[in-house]
Amino acid sequence: MEKTMDKIVSLAKTRGFVYPGSEIYGGLANTWDYGPLGVELKNNIKKAWWQKFIQENKYNVGVDCAILMNPQAWVASGHVGGFNDPLMDCKECKERFRADKIIEDYAQDNDMEVEAVDGWSNDKMKDFIQDHTIKCPSCGAFNYTDIRQFNLMFKTFQGVTESASNTVYLRPETAQGIFVNFKNVQRTSRKKIPFGIGQVGKSFRNEITPGNFTFRTREFEQMELEFFCEPGKDMEWFEYWKEFCINWLKSLGMKEDNIRVRDHEKEELSHYSNATTDLEYAFPFGWGELWGIADRTDYDLKQHQEHSGEDMSYFDDSTNEKYIPYCIEPSLGADRVTLAYLCDAYDEEALENGDSRNVLRFHPVIAPVKMAVLPLSKKLNEQAEEVFQLLSKKYNVEYDDRGSIGKRYRRQDEIGTPFCITYDFDSLEDESVTIRFRDSMKQERIKISELDSFFEKQFTF
Amino acid sequence: MEKTMDKIVSLAKTRGFVYPGSEIYGGLANTWDYGPLGVELKNNIKKAWWQKFIQENKYNVGVDCAILMNPQAWVASGHVGGFNDPLMDCKECKERFRADKIIEDYAQDNDMEVEAVDGWSNDKMKDFIQDHTIKCPSCGAFNYTDIRQFNLMFKTFQGVTESASNTVYLRPETAQGIFVNFKNVQRTSRKKIPFGIGQVGKSFRNEITPGNFTFRTREFEQMELEFFCEPGKDMEWFEYWKEFCINWLKSLGMKEDNIRVRDHEKEELSHYSNATTDLEYAFPFGWGELWGIADRTDYDLKQHQEHSGEDMSYFDDSTNEKYIPYCIEPSLGADRVTLAYLCDAYDEEALENGDSRNVLRFHPVIAPVKMAVLPLSKKLNEQAEEVFQLLSKKYNVEYDDRGSIGKRYRRQDEIGTPFCITYDFDSLEDESVTIRFRDSMKQERIKISELDSFFEKQFTF
Repeated sequence: MEKTMDKIVSLAKTRGFVYPGSEIYGGLANTWDYGPLGVELKNNIKKAWWQKFIQENKYNVGVDCAILMNPQAWVASGHVGGFNDPLMDCKECKERFRADKIIEDYAQDNDMEVEAVDGWSNDKMKDFIQDHTIKCPSCGAFNYTDIRQFNLMFKTFQGVTESASNTVYLRPETAQGIFVNFKNVQRTSRKKIPFGIGQVGKSFRNEITPGNFTFRTREFEQMELEFFCEPGKDMEWFEYWKEFCINWLKSLGMKEDNIRVRDHEKEELSHYSNATTDLEYAFPFGWGELWGIADRTDYDLKQHQEHSGEDMSYFDDSTNEKYIPYCIEPSLGADRVTLAYLCDAYDEEALENGDSRNVLRFHPVIAPVKMAVLPLSKKLNEQAEEVFQLLSKKYNVEYDDRGSIGKRYRRQDEIGTPFCITYDFDSLEDESVTIRFRDSMKQERIKISELDSFFEKQFTF
Repeated sequence: MEKTMDKIVSLAKTRGFVYPGSEIYGGLANTWDYGPLGVELKNNIKKAWWQKFIQENKYNVGVDCAILMNPQAWVASGHVGGFNDPLMDCKECKERFRADKIIEDYAQDNDMEVEAVDGWSNDKMKDFIQDHTIKCPSCGAFNYTDIRQFNLMFKTFQGVTESASNTVYLRPETAQGIFVNFKNVQRTSRKKIPFGIGQVGKSFRNEITPGNFTFRTREFEQMELEFFCEPGKDMEWFEYWKEFCINWLKSLGMKEDNIRVRDHEKEELSHYSNATTDLEYAFPFGWGELWGIADRTDYDLKQHQEHSGEDMSYFDDSTNEKYIPYCIEPSLGADRVTLAYLCDAYDEEALENGDSRNVLRFHPVIAPVKMAVLPLSKKLNEQAEEVFQLLSKKYNVEYDDRGSIGKRYRRQDEIGTPFCITYDFDSLEDESVTIRFRDSMKQERIKISELDSFFEKQFTF
């Protein structure tokens, strides 16, 4: 079986996982809307993150900060000054490119080794392009404008006048909302170091080349944790969270072979970072970053202390020392990891009788529909609906009374429903139903009164 | 007991429900960040909405659409042309006002009856202000600029150039994402009329006068349902959803006396609306709208059909008729209803012994912390933590081993935790704990092995 993006995008659209955004108006760049199944899948993944990173974790608490922040926060974080893409136009065909990408693509095509191009100066990039006469990837000419730095933050105006003093930015990451609230959270939650603050929410980056379906979009959702610890204990905690993240991915059924752990080389690291690791997933279009785990030292809190004048230090009463905590940041893209689980689940299975079926092998915890209630005849609707009502108190359940039972199973397989519950005429007598399992296709007869305790066990992880 | 906004804002800040946004930089207009307790409270309310409006409801499904939409969608919806506030400056003190608000305030102060000022033309408003010589509320002068219409949508630029062709808007409501996907959702979910599509998400309005804490903010979250039905059956469904919404508010413990149902007069209705009702809450600052329930007829789908050229009609195979469905829209503000539940829960109770306690009487389903595990001595930490681990698999639990047990109870009362679980030295022998109830302060001894089934019953609604 070949797993292609075409197949996955098509399934996503026809089954209601993801539609092109504003489709009836011809779309809008690379925006996407989650349909009835997509929103359940993504919500389940966000809930599973919250459960393990916040709810069950004794170190961490959550926050939910505004997308619009005081612009000084973005000066302090370095985003106003340094969050840029190097852009360059072809004077002939007017196409626009990222200079660093042109260099990386050229190097790859010619088996050259170039390192950390995104850290190069404009001059260095310009010289490289000159020295190698890299031609326009679009029209083949060699006639570029100068390279200029383009800030990736979306800008808008709060209030009536569109002036510089009214300029605010859509946050490019959720992390800074956490840093500016470090003292507020520490004080009100009475947490002691080590502790972490997590957040789930939308961020925006004015990318020049979004793409690969929902992998890179201008509007995206993040699940970020900022974990504060004692300086010197940071590498210990870095390893702890790296393991924790890998285990989380696996615990929801992601195949180990599809996960790659890429530790950054010293040269690749930001000047303030002690260590960074990317967890990558083997998408049909290649390896792509899901999770960036970084030891950011005390850089962010120090920057905010300097720019705000607020004391960001912590008094450690176990050591009687005052210090600015170090910070480990595991930062996960919610849309990316949702796409990864969708790709991971995709399967086309050849059956013994020569038929085949499409099946999404989601872990039950993230499956958008947990179970489908299927009356064998419309005459049984009244009783079957009672089963539906009972289960929908706890789970997202579908009710389907249309078509042959075989077709209904296939439909549920294709959207990844782990359990089908058939209500038949015998059910009227024995108060039992048949549970059919998605992966094994085996069936089991079970008392309706025992459904609750049966399912209780299926959705822990 | 006097329930004031000052008390509630102060409690919110000191206990970690809500902090001023970007506080270390002096804030940003009226933005707010939810702290560890606030995010749990708001998430619980959003989950409770989703549970009753989507999960358990056999008619409805959910979506999650992009905030950035093709600008044509906002032309069709009327937001580009008509989503304006009438603004006016005082030439003397340079203060800026909403002309309609000045007229409403003047009318109220002078016991005059004015109706639907927000529908008046600029000329009508100007004449009224002239005729009554309404003076500047700020400096007392009578020297205004002309009234001009200011569009409330936040504008930003997608891509490199800040040109009109790159202008996109932050959505001012989640509803339009649903309307543009009407056909996609209907087709992929195979729903038949009547059915609804719900969405929870951020919206943005560049309000001139935000205020009253989190009641009116420029960035806010909505929970909207668009319910599609057969033309002619709309008033029936309008009544259905009105009842449904009132019952939902009450089912989570909102006091009936604090809810007001305000049906709009004919003159107040938008030209396309058959009926509109506001559900209002008695905030300490006065009655404020929580929920707008509107019969929007076929207006939105028709507008999108006209502007996109896409056929928005539905073929009803039960009647063999083709029509554009009518739509009932219950639109709820997530931040507002969260604030309402916070106000509703606030209590200062005089105790029999002359003491008093602050207590947030949240319904258990929305309480941010469901239970607190309190070891009577730090020597019992190991065993008590096992109880914490057990319960935190299912619930948001706090663990507190600091201070006297009485003080710990008070702390949990003040954040609205419905159940305190005390682990004492007897627990080692009898494998039981004491549950102390927030509201009655009564205590009950219970086996640890029975906690699960005990709590199971406490969190249904």
